[in-house]
Amino acid sequence: MRADPDAPDLALFHSRRPATAAGLLTRNHFPGAPILLARERLAAGRLRTVVVNARFSNVATGPAGLADAREMAELAAHETGVSPQEVLVGSTGIIGRRLPMDRIRRGIQGMGATLGPDLWPAARAIMTTDTHPKVVSAQVEGATLTAVGKGAGMVSPNLATMLVYLFTDAAVPAPELDRMLRAAAARSFQVLSIDTDTSTSDMVVALANGAAGEVSATAFRTALDAVCLSMAELVARDGEGATKLLRVQVSGAVDSSEAGRIARSVADSPLVKTMAYGADPNVGRLLMAVGKCVTCRVVPGRVRITLQGVEVIRAGMPVDFPEARVRELLGGDPVNVRIDLGLASGEGMALGCDLTEGYVEENAAYASS
Amino acid sequence: MRADPDAPDLALFHSRRPATAAGLLTRNHFPGAPILLARERLAAGRLRTVVVNARFSNVATGPAGLADAREMAELAAHETGVSPQEVLVGSTGIIGRRLPMDRIRRGIQGMGATLGPDLWPAARAIMTTDTHPKVVSAQVEGATLTAVGKGAGMVSPNLATMLVYLFTDAAVPAPELDRMLRAAAARSFQVLSIDTDTSTSDMVVALANGAAGEVSATAFRTALDAVCLSMAELVARDGEGATKLLRVQVSGAVDSSEAGRIARSVADSPLVKTMAYGADPNVGRLLMAVGKCVTCRVVPGRVRITLQGVEVIRAGMPVDFPEARVRELLGGDPVNVRIDLGLASGEGMALGCDLTEGYVEENAAYASS
Repeated sequence: MRADPDAPDLALFHSRRPATAAGLLTRNHFPGAPILLARERLAAGRLRTVVVNARFSNVATGPAGLADAREMAELAAHETGVSPQEVLVGSTGIIGRRLPMDRIRRGIQGMGATLGPDLWPAARAIMTTDTHPKVVSAQVEGATLTAVGKGAGMVSPNLATMLVYLFTDAAVPAPELDRMLRAAAARSFQVLSIDTDTSTSDMVVALANGAAGEVSATAFRTALDAVCLSMAELVARDGEGATKLLRVQVSGAVDSSEAGRIARSVADSPLVKTMAYGADPNVGRLLMAVGKCVTCRVVPGRVRITLQGVEVIRAGMPVDFPEARVRELLGGDPVNVRIDLGLASGEGMALGCDLTEGYVEENAAYASS
Repeated sequence: MRADPDAPDLALFHSRRPATAAGLLTRNHFPGAPILLARERLAAGRLRTVVVNARFSNVATGPAGLADAREMAELAAHETGVSPQEVLVGSTGIIGRRLPMDRIRRGIQGMGATLGPDLWPAARAIMTTDTHPKVVSAQVEGATLTAVGKGAGMVSPNLATMLVYLFTDAAVPAPELDRMLRAAAARSFQVLSIDTDTSTSDMVVALANGAAGEVSATAFRTALDAVCLSMAELVARDGEGATKLLRVQVSGAVDSSEAGRIARSVADSPLVKTMAYGADPNVGRLLMAVGKCVTCRVVPGRVRITLQGVEVIRAGMPVDFPEARVRELLGGDPVNVRIDLGLASGEGMALGCDLTEGYVEENAAYASS
């Protein structure tokens, strides 16, 4: 599942100070053992250490898998001098296999001594089929907010990402962190889909240790929104086999829920995704994808669509647009689709990527053993 | 959009006797002009002639497109000596372009004289990206029931097929034909998905002219169910780029609706589809796909799954199955997945196909102009 089987596949994050914590977890019916553990530990709203392994997801491994996750937490707690209750565990990789605990024990041992401020090695260690590590950072007054994430495949809301960890030295009470993280995720990770498949291991978790003191709520919210959106776009653009980001914005819907569903119907459509890849302005597919949301309110004659800023559909019909120019624009990244339903003021968006032979090759060849 | 641009792309079907008629039409919000016309004409429950063109779908063409569809009906009515109200029009192909009416006028002229009992040339004429023509036939006591269909891409329920026309010389009153056709479609075309994209041109229409007299309702229903299922499987297996049929059966769900949704969640999952293509028993993906139906009732510990008849998941966890044997079985066609949720007696199924580089190549390269 990784290009380099010898690459490091363990990451340890640690805050020297106690930190408030909040998180969102996958709603898949087969949550991995780390998700079960995270449910317990996020409830307390306090975390100091995060330990993550790639290669095996510790999903569908039963009570033994849960015991493995608890042991990982204990090992990381011992390394960083905290209580196991303050440790979050994340796992990503093949489903249905026990963790190689011998290797994990050896791996965690001594990691505490190697901790440093550079998050890139950890971002690299949690990669699976990602082509590059993902770190996004922003300044918030005197504080910093940094996200480390991975994605690539089996990515779709509830929740929409593989693993994202956000760290800040701003002081943010846990309930407020939770509220702001959910709001930010609703406009980023929750509107992101690589392949409509929902991982059993998704988690987005934020830790705030307050070392830099308090910052204004507005500034923090703005930074959090921006970092989450950037990370979601990074994940979408690095979808398995993807060559570009697909950004679909819908306005004029009867409400924001329908706007979001239509945006997703378009971003997830294999025929729209292959159109983005092929850079051919086959705009009828956009109408088809809007129209297949049969439980949404759509009045064909009011629909207007722009593709890369060029109007291609007006009053529900293709206009005589400059094809060669649009084809050229479609060669770029991202591909922007804006749909105005012309009904009311509901707005929504979806983030996705194109669908290429690379996705098929990668997943048809992905060895389960 | 077709391998051979010079291939015939017009089909004319005609019943020498008046026939009862029933049909199901796409629920996409952007129905083609032929669908609008079909809504009118199916209401009467009587049809004698069906004219179908491939290459242009006459979708998103506005009032002019509707006038073109009406003219096609008039031309076909003139050729076959019936009233335009007794003619159904079908179109499939590129969305958003006017029909080349000059060519269609020339094409229809004289077709009435070429009518014969062989349906294969018509099945060939309505192909787009299909790799082979599709005809399925069954005997019902002294009568015959034959379906002519096409599929390939942009195929997903509401309604799930591109075009299917069923012809029988059995005598079946229109209301009964409608009822039986809906029931048969519910277990075939409505559970079929190639790519989750719903066509703007779907229609399944049956004509019964009674030339062979009455048959028993039970016998006719059985034949209709079988013909629809065979045609749906033919369409699934010939999905764009597909190499095999994917058949997912769910039992033990809380009701048939949830069983159907879970079956579809699995059959539509890109990661399950690429697994079928790659023939690697990556069975964790089956759990993921069952579990991503977050609004369905699933108790992980009760889930049992067989793949090609071999038990691979028991009590929600992978069992130690014979991998090499399952890999070999996965090389076959179809790929059968059976999921028992162990909760109640709800049953459902879904028909799909694998996802290959061929789908991407075909749709990335599909020229819109």
